[in-house]
Amino acid sequence: MSVQPSRAQQAPRVKVPAGTTAGAAVAEAGLPSKGAEAVVVVRDAEGALRDLDWAPEADAEVEAVAAESEEGRSVIRHSAAHVLAQAVQDLFPDAKLGIGPPVRDGFYYDFDVDKPFTPEDLQALEKRMKQILKSGQKFSRRRLDSVEAAKEELANEPYKLELVDLKSGDDSVDTSEVMEVGGGDLTVYDNIDRHGERVWGDLCRGPHVPHTRFIPAFKLTRVAAAYWRGDQANQQLQRVYGTAWESKEKLEEHVERLAEAERRDHRKLGAELDLFSFPDEIGSGLPVFHPKGGIIKREMEDYVRERHIEEGFEYVGTPHISHEQLFHTSGHLPYYADTMFPPMEFDGYQYRLKAMNCPMHNLIFRSRGRSYRELPLRLFEFGHVYRYEKSGVIQGLTRVRGFAQDDSHSYCTKEQAPDEVKHLLNFMLSVLRDFGMDDFYLEMSTRDDSKPDKFAGSDEDWAEATAVLEQVAHDSGLELVADPGGAAFYGPKISVQAKDAIGRTWQMGTVQYDFNQPEGFELEYQAADGERKRPIMIHSAKFGSIERFFGVLTEHYAGAFPAWLAPVQVVGIPIADEHVEHLEKVRKALRTKGIRVDIDTSGDRMQKKIRNHTTQKVPFMLLAGGKDVEGDAVSFRFRDGSQINGVGVDDAVNALVDWVQRRENTSPTAENFQAGQE
Amino acid sequence: MSVQPSRAQQAPRVKVPAGTTAGAAVAEAGLPSKGAEAVVVVRDAEGALRDLDWAPEADAEVEAVAAESEEGRSVIRHSAAHVLAQAVQDLFPDAKLGIGPPVRDGFYYDFDVDKPFTPEDLQALEKRMKQILKSGQKFSRRRLDSVEAAKEELANEPYKLELVDLKSGDDSVDTSEVMEVGGGDLTVYDNIDRHGERVWGDLCRGPHVPHTRFIPAFKLTRVAAAYWRGDQANQQLQRVYGTAWESKEKLEEHVERLAEAERRDHRKLGAELDLFSFPDEIGSGLPVFHPKGGIIKREMEDYVRERHIEEGFEYVGTPHISHEQLFHTSGHLPYYADTMFPPMEFDGYQYRLKAMNCPMHNLIFRSRGRSYRELPLRLFEFGHVYRYEKSGVIQGLTRVRGFAQDDSHSYCTKEQAPDEVKHLLNFMLSVLRDFGMDDFYLEMSTRDDSKPDKFAGSDEDWAEATAVLEQVAHDSGLELVADPGGAAFYGPKISVQAKDAIGRTWQMGTVQYDFNQPEGFELEYQAADGERKRPIMIHSAKFGSIERFFGVLTEHYAGAFPAWLAPVQVVGIPIADEHVEHLEKVRKALRTKGIRVDIDTSGDRMQKKIRNHTTQKVPFMLLAGGKDVEGDAVSFRFRDGSQINGVGVDDAVNALVDWVQRRENTSPTAENFQAGQE
Repeated sequence: MSVQPSRAQQAPRVKVPAGTTAGAAVAEAGLPSKGAEAVVVVRDAEGALRDLDWAPEADAEVEAVAAESEEGRSVIRHSAAHVLAQAVQDLFPDAKLGIGPPVRDGFYYDFDVDKPFTPEDLQALEKRMKQILKSGQKFSRRRLDSVEAAKEELANEPYKLELVDLKSGDDSVDTSEVMEVGGGDLTVYDNIDRHGERVWGDLCRGPHVPHTRFIPAFKLTRVAAAYWRGDQANQQLQRVYGTAWESKEKLEEHVERLAEAERRDHRKLGAELDLFSFPDEIGSGLPVFHPKGGIIKREMEDYVRERHIEEGFEYVGTPHISHEQLFHTSGHLPYYADTMFPPMEFDGYQYRLKAMNCPMHNLIFRSRGRSYRELPLRLFEFGHVYRYEKSGVIQGLTRVRGFAQDDSHSYCTKEQAPDEVKHLLNFMLSVLRDFGMDDFYLEMSTRDDSKPDKFAGSDEDWAEATAVLEQVAHDSGLELVADPGGAAFYGPKISVQAKDAIGRTWQMGTVQYDFNQPEGFELEYQAADGERKRPIMIHSAKFGSIERFFGVLTEHYAGAFPAWLAPVQVVGIPIADEHVEHLEKVRKALRTKGIRVDIDTSGDRMQKKIRNHTTQKVPFMLLAGGKDVEGDAVSFRFRDGSQINGVGVDDAVNALVDWVQRRENTSPTAENFQAGQE
Repeated sequence: MSVQPSRAQQAPRVKVPAGTTAGAAVAEAGLPSKGAEAVVVVRDAEGALRDLDWAPEADAEVEAVAAESEEGRSVIRHSAAHVLAQAVQDLFPDAKLGIGPPVRDGFYYDFDVDKPFTPEDLQALEKRMKQILKSGQKFSRRRLDSVEAAKEELANEPYKLELVDLKSGDDSVDTSEVMEVGGGDLTVYDNIDRHGERVWGDLCRGPHVPHTRFIPAFKLTRVAAAYWRGDQANQQLQRVYGTAWESKEKLEEHVERLAEAERRDHRKLGAELDLFSFPDEIGSGLPVFHPKGGIIKREMEDYVRERHIEEGFEYVGTPHISHEQLFHTSGHLPYYADTMFPPMEFDGYQYRLKAMNCPMHNLIFRSRGRSYRELPLRLFEFGHVYRYEKSGVIQGLTRVRGFAQDDSHSYCTKEQAPDEVKHLLNFMLSVLRDFGMDDFYLEMSTRDDSKPDKFAGSDEDWAEATAVLEQVAHDSGLELVADPGGAAFYGPKISVQAKDAIGRTWQMGTVQYDFNQPEGFELEYQAADGERKRPIMIHSAKFGSIERFFGVLTEHYAGAFPAWLAPVQVVGIPIADEHVEHLEKVRKALRTKGIRVDIDTSGDRMQKKIRNHTTQKVPFMLLAGGKDVEGDAVSFRFRDGSQINGVGVDDAVNALVDWVQRRENTSPTAENFQAGQE
């Protein structure tokens, strides 16, 4: 059985006779040269992308790469980056060029300029880029004969010169991340205008679209500072980001997605809804949960703890610091030294904040003799771990330095391992479904055979462990994507990749198969035949990190948490002061059943109150006026504006309690709320 | 209003004419010279204790100190320590003497000997001591004329010589902890036999009982190593511990108490019941909770979290580390520097493991504008804190380095403070009552006016804060004991001192009044009149530390946790294999209601199973035999051996669920279980 990355759909194949250009062959084959399906480059037999004016020396067969494919978009974006650089040097003649690659969903280009670009500068640059696109330039590849020739041509571009030096000099320097000079040759792409004149050019390995007409839609998005070659010791450059697409429609969709993602940004919603903050006084990547966020976090923790207990896990507790030696025994040091916080020394020992819980769970396993009758022994805790993330990558709740894992370790026999992995995978998926996420695929992280120093244990053990995970992943029927080299040092991993409400993929829970740590800790159990045997341990986190999952859920729900998680589940809104007493009675009935309910007795008018609580995303608003009081009823108002009037108080209480207890994930409306009661 | 330490009962007063001994006056007054009431020493007008053969130069009035008073016992124990030393030097002539003071409930004496004392040595020493007591020696005080005379007399006792040097030399050396040479004089107590001959003697300031007949009962308890003058750089000595009492009955009671405390020792029970451990691999004072201990801890946490929410507290969450600067803002540094773990440096900042949660709660308060309408704002979390305790004082769960406080901070106006303190005190006491602890007194910790550098803030603020706490403590009607100087730097404190099932006192929850940190953090709220005002903050922990309270409860319950806390609440015991199926049905019914139930299907015989689960302190055993299966019933077996046969399954389930849900703290028996159902 083998695991394959998911492949793009089959591209059309074209025969290119020797001496003919790929473009001519593509045209001959009648493939489109306009619109989203336009062919922008081709892929040769070796898998390399080639410009359309590439002419093979012998007959060749190539794949046509369309603008609307991921590779096609990447080429369009790379060409757009060149146009950006050209525009910058037109408007800021002293600007020196850094690098300008395509990236996910867009591109950037770094420039050394006297002062940062302003929003007005970006507008001017967009305008100039549009003029360039309109002028209809060709992108023309030219091979440089020697390093000397390159240096002469690039004499005014110090950063490019540095790249040429790197490229032609010390081979041990890996330049692939910072430069696009490619293959064995140094090449330049010249921009040639309608009159055949070279108007700009850039050291680049390509490929590019043939012509600016093939860049149908682009937009500059933002500017940020970036150090040359990513090193703080180097010059700070200005990085201009942009995006480019195969059509105006696709660009608009992308811009709308960006805006939607910004509206859903959990850092923004966290502040607006008073859920959490990131105080500078504490330090970067160390979130603080406010009362409302504390309620959501508690509901999440209670939910997942209850689920663990139902699934046969036992709740344990371990400290946050330990002698450093423990992490040598587990094998995490030296592998994870960069990820762990620096040691604290006292009483003659080096202590470390823990970055993982497994070593401590191993000590619990080892605290007394174990029998095969106890296996699988499943230990679980909210393990608070600390990992040193560089300050540049820290982001809200989704990339933090301190977080709690809902971390479990199942100790089992080799024979039990496949069933236990299956159990964990199903458990993990059912947890995600309970939060309304049901679109996922699996990623299978394996050892990188070429880096034996990064992975512990024998080839046979790795093969066996990988086979167990692959079989379970395969049996799940879910899409499976390979992640070669992504395993932990101690064993392979399955991770669940879930899509959120706007289609973005997030890595969620993981299952890891570990035969190494039981060895390091000399874990043993007594088998049925009386022999002492070594268990397998299976690591798993279902949410992954509570903080991260909280962040993902905030964006998934766009802050409108389902009622069972919402900090305020119900708010009572009296039409006039004399209706407050009636709502107090309703509040008491709801509170007795564990519902979180407030009454808005502020001086605001009713419509203002409805607006406020809609903005605060309270799932249920209960209005009470004269008729409601008379009829011992309340009127439901929903966030979408729908309403159900005059529901008897007992019925209302029962319906609300039922909605919350069954963990309904949809936003309540008059329609679905009534349907739920039928 | 003033707070007084509790005083001992009034002692009889006796007039001693000039030139007469105190003993003669005591005898003249007809006070007892035998039994528990025997007068052993007297207290003079200056409060100093004097031997009975002390003869004042002028007429004096003294208090008679009886054997059965705490001071009387202390003198008996000190004299017993001399007899121990005498016995050691009789049996081990080369032994050199260290010091030998009375301590709480007993005494010890340190000896420099070639090899540690064995249990057999202790027996021989006890035997020799009994001979000495029987021989009827007098303790006779003798003043040494000079340091030189002392040195000559003590030429063979190098440690005593060192004490004389310390005493007579550098005044800056505080010798009070390590030596008993006293006052202005160097004195020796000689042991004089019936023939008037000096048989032993020791440098000592006294006082002593007049005669060995006044040591009615003693026992040697154990031996431990101890460094001379408590310094690891010095010689290691052997410390022999013993206890002595005013009567054989009191000694026996004490020995029984020790045995009971040992039986209840939570470290021992924690291992026997598989609740927790203290792995050397992690480090000292860092407990690990096993699955069964994890259940108890979770029940405790859930209980106290629910209670906090009921009482109006909001659950928040904060990280375990922070920039060190935060603890300067709060004022904890430099005051608490010795208590905090050493810093970790990264990204150019010093980070600290937090030792307290208040600074982080202050940041939550300050995260947005606050109105008087929100006050009291009550923030609460399980705050995991780390405090550097010296390795010598760490003990089980009751003195640890890492623990979780059920920590709350109430932010309120000055006017609200008295009610909030009262609210917190009542809350704390009701929590203790829910665990079956209802015998408590309060301790009132105030500022030490002579150490202004240890306390922050003005005299007026301290006076006001102290008055608020005193008033609330007074109104509670509980006994109130003063603890001058015991306050935190930021404000005074009330602590609850609770007695456990065998009468030992433990410090539990605390309430602290703080006007300093709101100042340091510039906390503000908008008052009703629109003005910005500073709130008061009131710190409180109800359990104190969850770990410590767990340890105390383990001892309080002697490991027999009440059913609502017990890791296994019910165990089903089939009389034969064919009755297992019936018990499975009962288990399912109980589990659905959240009861933790196991079935013992091991190969052991029924009586063995009952013994095992009694030892494991499972509150309910359900037996099932043929009759039970026929009648759809179960038979209850209790730990005390009582039994209720043939209870219908539905009734049994309901009764068990009710017992657990109402958090019944008593151990179930046939009698109280039936009574509870009526």
